[in-house]
Amino acid sequence: MAGLDELYDEGAVSVEAMDMNGPGTATSRGLAAIKAKHEWWNGAFEVTGGKVEGPYLHGADRFAVIFAMETRNRETGETGAMQEVAVYTVNEAGRIVREEFFY
Amino acid sequence: MAGLDELYDEGAVSVEAMDMNGPGTATSRGLAAIKAKHEWWNGAFEVTGGKVEGPYLHGADRFAVIFAMETRNRETGETGAMQEVAVYTVNEAGRIVREEFFY
Repeated sequence: MAGLDELYDEGAVSVEAMDMNGPGTATSRGLAAIKAKHEWWNGAFEVTGGKVEGPYLHGADRFAVIFAMETRNRETGETGAMQEVAVYTVNEAGRIVREEFFY
Repeated sequence: MAGLDELYDEGAVSVEAMDMNGPGTATSRGLAAIKAKHEWWNGAFEVTGGKVEGPYLHGADRFAVIFAMETRNRETGETGAMQEVAVYTVNEAGRIVREEFFY
């Protein structure tokens, strides 16, 4: 994903909906870990279509985005469609310090 | 809205995206205040169509719902369409203790 360096704080925390690989693995701490997650994901899946809606604002420091995605598993060829909600928290500098995914 | 008594904790807090009537008014504290907000809203607007998507889960205690609504202002007749995201937090008894609206 382009823009990570511009949009995210270096210490940003990313939280998936659930642990995927043992206790505590839902949470990725720091921009390097978030980039690694993106790299893993993009290596495993190809996005073949989708839609982004938002941002939907809440207070001065949070917003939500709705992501609809059509995907293709690069290894198996299996295709899928999903929709998820992401909730972002920004700091006073306008950088994302936390993202939480709901699905 | 049906189900408030069944779904919400008595002390539930509801937070709109922004203050609508002076500082602090984004937040309604307690089920009675939430019911009053619903009554006000339903008195002001008629829902003429819409769609509810979700729940989208996050961790053990939160979920998001996407509401699309077509509305009609009962007083002016003005029609509108909006989409919003609601994020709910539940307690261990499964009751909603907090709702936050993003729009």
